Amino acid sequence: MLKRYLPILTWLPHYNRRLGSADVLAGLIVTVMVIPQSLAYAVLAGLPAVVGLYASLLPAVVYVLLGTSRTLAVGPVAIIALMTGAVLADIATPGTAEYLQAALILSFLSGIMLLLMGMLRMGFIANFLSHPVIGGFLSAAGVLIVASQAGHLLGVELNSRELLPRLSELAQGLPSLHLMTLTIGSGTFVFLLFMRRYGRSMLQRIGCSKSLADLLTRAGPVFAVIVTTLATWHFDLASGGVAVIGSVPQGLPPLGLPGFDFSLWQALLIPALLISIVGFVESVSMGQMLAARRRERISPNQELIGLGGANLAAAITSGMPVSGGLTRTVINYDAGAQTPMAGLVAAIGIGTATLFFTPLLAYLPIATLAATITVSSLTLIDIGMIRQTWRYSRSDFSAMAITILLTLVDSIEAGIVSGVVLSIGLFLYRTSRPHSALVGRIPDSEHFRNIERHATETVSHLALLRIDESLYFANARYLEDTVYDLVASRPELEHVVLICSAVNLIDASALESLDAINARLRDSGVTLHLAEVKGPVMDRLKHSDFLDDMTGRVFLSTYAAWRELAQATADLSTDRI
Amino acid sequence: MLKRYLPILTWLPHYNRRLGSADVLAGLIVTVMVIPQSLAYAVLAGLPAVVGLYASLLPAVVYVLLGTSRTLAVGPVAIIALMTGAVLADIATPGTAEYLQAALILSFLSGIMLLLMGMLRMGFIANFLSHPVIGGFLSAAGVLIVASQAGHLLGVELNSRELLPRLSELAQGLPSLHLMTLTIGSGTFVFLLFMRRYGRSMLQRIGCSKSLADLLTRAGPVFAVIVTTLATWHFDLASGGVAVIGSVPQGLPPLGLPGFDFSLWQALLIPALLISIVGFVESVSMGQMLAARRRERISPNQELIGLGGANLAAAITSGMPVSGGLTRTVINYDAGAQTPMAGLVAAIGIGTATLFFTPLLAYLPIATLAATITVSSLTLIDIGMIRQTWRYSRSDFSAMAITILLTLVDSIEAGIVSGVVLSIGLFLYRTSRPHSALVGRIPDSEHFRNIERHATETVSHLALLRIDESLYFANARYLEDTVYDLVASRPELEHVVLICSAVNLIDASALESLDAINARLRDSGVTLHLAEVKGPVMDRLKHSDFLDDMTGRVFLSTYAAWRELAQATADLSTDRI
Repeated sequence: MLKRYLPILTWLPHYNRRLGSADVLAGLIVTVMVIPQSLAYAVLAGLPAVVGLYASLLPAVVYVLLGTSRTLAVGPVAIIALMTGAVLADIATPGTAEYLQAALILSFLSGIMLLLMGMLRMGFIANFLSHPVIGGFLSAAGVLIVASQAGHLLGVELNSRELLPRLSELAQGLPSLHLMTLTIGSGTFVFLLFMRRYGRSMLQRIGCSKSLADLLTRAGPVFAVIVTTLATWHFDLASGGVAVIGSVPQGLPPLGLPGFDFSLWQALLIPALLISIVGFVESVSMGQMLAARRRERISPNQELIGLGGANLAAAITSGMPVSGGLTRTVINYDAGAQTPMAGLVAAIGIGTATLFFTPLLAYLPIATLAATITVSSLTLIDIGMIRQTWRYSRSDFSAMAITILLTLVDSIEAGIVSGVVLSIGLFLYRTSRPHSALVGRIPDSEHFRNIERHATETVSHLALLRIDESLYFANARYLEDTVYDLVASRPELEHVVLICSAVNLIDASALESLDAINARLRDSGVTLHLAEVKGPVMDRLKHSDFLDDMTGRVFLSTYAAWRELAQATADLSTDRI
Repeated sequence: MLKRYLPILTWLPHYNRRLGSADVLAGLIVTVMVIPQSLAYAVLAGLPAVVGLYASLLPAVVYVLLGTSRTLAVGPVAIIALMTGAVLADIATPGTAEYLQAALILSFLSGIMLLLMGMLRMGFIANFLSHPVIGGFLSAAGVLIVASQAGHLLGVELNSRELLPRLSELAQGLPSLHLMTLTIGSGTFVFLLFMRRYGRSMLQRIGCSKSLADLLTRAGPVFAVIVTTLATWHFDLASGGVAVIGSVPQGLPPLGLPGFDFSLWQALLIPALLISIVGFVESVSMGQMLAARRRERISPNQELIGLGGANLAAAITSGMPVSGGLTRTVINYDAGAQTPMAGLVAAIGIGTATLFFTPLLAYLPIATLAATITVSSLTLIDIGMIRQTWRYSRSDFSAMAITILLTLVDSIEAGIVSGVVLSIGLFLYRTSRPHSALVGRIPDSEHFRNIERHATETVSHLALLRIDESLYFANARYLEDTVYDLVASRPELEHVVLICSAVNLIDASALESLDAINARLRDSGVTLHLAEVKGPVMDRLKHSDFLDDMTGRVFLSTYAAWRELAQATADLSTDRI
């Protein structure tokens, strides 16, 4: 019981020196790697850069205690930072105390919601974000992030927050761009892109081992941060107009509960819910993928509690909403982390940096961070997946398209919500017009197949109708229409057998329709039978009067129905096709 | 083509004398019967009584031209009147010109929406109101109507509109009730209830023919109206405080378009949509039921157009929202109506009454109408159906219960919307945790059954997993979990066969999960196969790379998979249960 709520107890007792040294090494690597990223995501959310560091401390520690994934690294992540920035900009001006306060309230609400969902075991709601909707959303978010950083990268000041006005503002501002900022930004951008594409193979070619080449490739952002910071400091580029982070407070984050303001809390409720769900879905998908690789399992409900705790921790330590981050988790995993202890080591490392080294960041150009964000966000835009979805299913594609479109031109909320609603609507629409087939016997066998696709034996007074869907309110009337049309078109019919091999549920509406069908067929002198009714469906039917009222019988198999009904009344009329 | 949009053309050319005399008789009977009802429903909606007559004229004629049901009678109906009253009371004060104006706008919007839905062929949306939700709503509406009339019936003035405050006000007002009103109201109520229960058998016992007894029983309200009106006039009860209809304008309704007021139109948009859908669902269910009895068909999409036209007609003739009414339709049907011509005759009859006889209605007590409404609304409350639904399915029952509860204590909109949302949510939740079963071979047959329910043959290196649900985003992850658990618990597994006989759809999310399952099983040295994939699902899969990547094969039948895989690798390990 205690182990379920404190998963740390499952691995800590077996902890040993070998695991320890692997975790310490991984933790140190993560420390160095994620500092630039944490700063960058805080800037993306419109918050002071140091908030990104704060949000990588206590939240990570809390997740170590409560989370079930052994390698997931929790902290600020791109998508959540983007969503946070979009929500807060509606409520306060970036840079003000209210803005920061609203970020803390957002973390707090998100933490409470995740904890509640975890306790209510509501991990299943993640399932309602379909792959096309998530994929579409991530691609659109990638575009939004790139657009949000374009100004920083080129040294053009942009004020509008929506995509299209922003782009036109960017085009108008291009002539007045800041050349030195452009140089730093585009230089870093090209360098990082180059490292990502060719770094590994180039380093291996000049003699690095594969793992060293991997490490150095990933250290690209760290290298860029150091070089551009030194250059900016040395040539005093800040006074020449290059935007830098500026003085960063030294020391650990201040503790405190976010203030209570009813209308503010109310305004942040829905955004917090959406941020919670998106963060959870991203985090748990990644956690599941990595756990699968090592034959481990994670518990979605406990993950909700872990992420909830992490967000509460962020709220009381001047942080921002956090989640399991793709980049930091991959770094952690690849650096050989064995247990969450690596996360603890990284948190201590980042804490030390926050205590002593923040003054070094004063000259770090914003353009460098913008380039870092832009390069890593490009990977979110997945054209291949969009093309595949188009090929596979127009209806999945349309849910993806509406998500992308509305995320880009309206808002993240509108994009995700309409994607989910459309996915559900399309699924219901499809199930509301189920496929059904008249089947006939494959000659001299016990098998029955669609008479339109196979050469089968049929009997004119007997219709074997297979319904390929659960029967429920959305298709109950359709079922009635199908049967009535069948009976109207074949006046010689004496028996209709509904084959229920694909019927996994008959709800109260469908039961009423079956009652109506039974009554109407009886009036026309046709007997209604069922065949291949599944156990659970049959158990349910026994709680109604339908089986007593039904004119015909329930057959175990279609063949049993055939044997009984095909020969009973009309031995002679059998016609072979 | 013209016939599709003007169904009158399908029957008018074949019209003959026999049909004509049946229709004229039915139309005259309907004229007399529905006048009290039409007045009553207008009062229920908070409108002048004469509006009920206006709404029975042109709307009925338009439906005759456009509707596909031969016997449906269109006019004011209880549920729609209740909804209209609830909506309008939020917007204006009953009795004012704005109130009447809002009713016309409501009809107009509802007409436009129904027409649009009809043209877009959206008749299918009616399917999303499940039987339990409609049934629950009708029962709750019955309670609301009875409560709304209690004041008129007892002669107590009530001001609150919500159920509970209304009831407490009624209790407080009881000591000051108006005795003469109570006498008329309760007398009419008891008389009508008695007629409904025992009228027919009593009249037959005293020598009436069955059809005359039927007719006289139905004429109960007409009789009550005549008697109480005469009594009120003769004894001058109105000046003693009995509320009467008062002077009713004589002549046909004034023509005119409803005024345009943007904010008012906007406020009425959602209510109009809901009224349209509820009216359509009620009307089309009834139409289908009656059409089925006579082996006729109705077209839901054309019904939308017919009802839309009727509501537009109501909007321009000082009417109120209309729909196909249960009582008036049953009267029409039982009176022997053969074609919509009967509706035309009734409209002419009511028009004549409106032209010449409305002064006779001045002394009609409101209490009489209240008693009429109350008695016919009691039939809406269907305890038996509530009990049956509880027995059959807790989840259907919960959708019904929330509909009833919220309709009673909050609003009709809240009741219906939450019922629909909950129905859909519960369906999705059920399909998100599909039933699945490991199956084994029934010894010496080609049949396979759940190993937990039947004595079957199994092989330890082969798992045959039957999934009893379409695979889509809501259960994709659940499928992964099921397969991973299976593989983790049986290390000797070499082959997993997913039996897809109940899988009617594999969406993009589920396809990704199958990809993930395939990759993970490959890593564990287990081969993934599919069996009994349906034609449409297979066609879709061919548009993806999955079939190329899959480690195993697609078998036509489970038996084919068994023959191939059970013997291939491990002939010796077969164990019989």
